[in-house]
Amino acid sequence: MKTALTGIKPTNIPHLGNYLGAIRPALALSESYRTAYFIADYHALTTVRSPTDLRRFVYDVAATWLACGLDPDKTLFYRQSDVVEVFELTWILSCLLATGQLERGHAYKDALAKGESPNAGIFNYPVLMAADILLYDTDLVPVGRDQKQHLELCRDVALRFNHLYGETLVVPDALIGDAPLVPGTDGTKMSKSKGNSIPLFESSKTLKKAVMSIATTSEPLEAPKDPEGSTVVALYRQVAGDEAAQVLEAKLRAGGYGWGHAKQDLLEALEAELGPKRERFHALRKDEALLDRLLAQGAEKAREKARATMDRVRRAIGIRG
Amino acid sequence: MKTALTGIKPTNIPHLGNYLGAIRPALALSESYRTAYFIADYHALTTVRSPTDLRRFVYDVAATWLACGLDPDKTLFYRQSDVVEVFELTWILSCLLATGQLERGHAYKDALAKGESPNAGIFNYPVLMAADILLYDTDLVPVGRDQKQHLELCRDVALRFNHLYGETLVVPDALIGDAPLVPGTDGTKMSKSKGNSIPLFESSKTLKKAVMSIATTSEPLEAPKDPEGSTVVALYRQVAGDEAAQVLEAKLRAGGYGWGHAKQDLLEALEAELGPKRERFHALRKDEALLDRLLAQGAEKAREKARATMDRVRRAIGIRG
Repeated sequence: MKTALTGIKPTNIPHLGNYLGAIRPALALSESYRTAYFIADYHALTTVRSPTDLRRFVYDVAATWLACGLDPDKTLFYRQSDVVEVFELTWILSCLLATGQLERGHAYKDALAKGESPNAGIFNYPVLMAADILLYDTDLVPVGRDQKQHLELCRDVALRFNHLYGETLVVPDALIGDAPLVPGTDGTKMSKSKGNSIPLFESSKTLKKAVMSIATTSEPLEAPKDPEGSTVVALYRQVAGDEAAQVLEAKLRAGGYGWGHAKQDLLEALEAELGPKRERFHALRKDEALLDRLLAQGAEKAREKARATMDRVRRAIGIRG
Repeated sequence: MKTALTGIKPTNIPHLGNYLGAIRPALALSESYRTAYFIADYHALTTVRSPTDLRRFVYDVAATWLACGLDPDKTLFYRQSDVVEVFELTWILSCLLATGQLERGHAYKDALAKGESPNAGIFNYPVLMAADILLYDTDLVPVGRDQKQHLELCRDVALRFNHLYGETLVVPDALIGDAPLVPGTDGTKMSKSKGNSIPLFESSKTLKKAVMSIATTSEPLEAPKDPEGSTVVALYRQVAGDEAAQVLEAKLRAGGYGWGHAKQDLLEALEAELGPKRERFHALRKDEALLDRLLAQGAEKAREKARATMDRVRRAIGIRG
C-alpha cells in the first residue's frame, strides 16, 4: 500500500471552502492509501508572527481535521515541529539545490512581484516541503496546481541525492487531484481574505446568516429558475451530492420554488453534514490536553520513521558513521 | 565569565598555517573565557561531496585540536551534527531574515562572482552560523575580517527576534583578533590550495623537506643578512617567540650565519613545538572510537544547553507550549 502525505498549514480557522475543497478530499485518500497528515506549524511561521495566533491555529486545525473524520489510530497525524529531524534534512537538501532553482519558486516570486521583501523562510519553503515529504518515504503527494512546481523540486533533489550518494531516498509522485472549486457567498472562490466565506463550525445561527447572504438572481417565486451558475446549487451539489442536486435543479426549473427555499435546503444539507462534526469539534477544541496527547502519540510514530530515514541519509553523506 | 564560541570547518587536514593562525590563538582564549569549540561538519557539506572525506576530515580536525591542547574536560567540544536543534533554530531565524540580506553575504557573492551556481547551503550559511552562535547563549565570537559581516547578520537577527518576541536570545559581540598572517614556503599566505604549506603532523623528514624549501635570498655564508621580510624569520618568530627571534635576527645581521642555519634553527623550534603534539595526534587519530566518545560526551553537554535555549525560543514564537 502506497503512502500519501498531506501537509496542513495552520494559518486560519478553516471554513467551508477548506472543508469541501481540501479536508474532505484529503481524508478520502485514507480509503486507498496509507495516509499521513501533519500540521505544518513551522511553514506557518513564514507568515504568522503572533505566538498566540500560531498556538491557536494549530489546535483549531487539529480539532477540525479530527472532527471531520481523521482517525489517528489508522493514519499518522503529527505536528511538524515535533519531528526535529526535518530541519536537519532541510539543511542537507539545501546543499544540493542551486539557489537559482529556489529563486524560480512560485511563493517567492509572487512575494517579489507584490513588491514585498520576502523572508528567507519563504525562499526556503520548498526545501522544507521536500524534507517533509522525503523524511517519510512518501510515495504520493496530493498537490493542487500551485504546488506542482514545489513537488517537482522535491523530486529533483531526491534524484540528485540518490545520484550523488546512492539510492537512499524514495522519489515521490504527484497525485494531482481536481480539487473542487468552492464558491463563496459572492460566487467567487471562497477565501477568508475576501470576506465571502461560510463558517464551518460556528453556530447554526451564524451559518444560516452566511447561507442567506449568498447572492442569487431575483426572479419572483413562481417563475422557473436557471440553476446554471447558481452558487447555492453549486454548494448544494458539493454538500448533498449529484443526485440530490438534480432534484433541487428540477424544483428550480419547475417554478414555484424560490431561492429562499433553495437556501433553506442548502442549510439543511449543511446541518446534516456539519452538525455532528461541529459538536465533535467543540468538544475536541476545548480539550487542548487531549489534542496535545494525540499529536504527541503521532509524533512518536513519525519520529521513529524519521530517525530511520535520517540514519540512512547520514550514513550516505558521511555524517556520524 | 563570558562564553566564546569557535567553529571549526573540517574541509582539509590542518597545516602549520592553520595551527599558528587559527588553532593556537583560539585555544589561548580558554585562559580568559569559558570556551566552546565545535566541528562544523554540516557547514562543510556545502562543499565536501565525498562521504569518506567528510568523515575523515572530522576525525582529522578533532585529533588535531585535542593534540594541540584542547581540553574537553574544561571546554565544550562537540560536533555540529550531534546537536540537531541547531537546524530548527536555523529555520526560525530564516523566517526573520530578508533574502536581500543573505544575497549580500560574502561567501554567496564570491561564488556568484566566480561564475559558480552556488547551492542554497552557501546562501543560507550565515543563518546556520547565527543559529550555531545563538543556540549556546554565546557572548563573544572570535572572528577574522571575513566573518565580521556574518556576525553582524547574527546580531541583527537576534535583535530582531528579541524585538518581535521579547528578550530571548543573547546578542553576541565580535572578538576581532589580529590573526597572525602565516607565510608559506613561497612567502605568500600559507594555503593548502597554493601548494606552499608546511605540514603540521607529518613525519620529521617531510617537515624538514618543507622547511628547507622555503624561499630565501642567496648571499654567501659570511655576508651579513637582512632579516626583514624573511619568511624563515617570520615563521621562527611565530613559533619561538619575539625574544628568540631577536637572537636569530642578530645572528643573520652579524654574518657568518647562513639561511641554511636559520632554517635549521626554525626546524628545531618547530620540532620542539610540534613534536609532542605530533605524537599525541597520531595516537588520537588512530583511535576513532575514543574521538567518537569524547565528541559524544561534548554533544551531551551541548544538547542540554541547546534544549534550554530552544525551550525559550519555542515558547516565545508559539510553537509547542
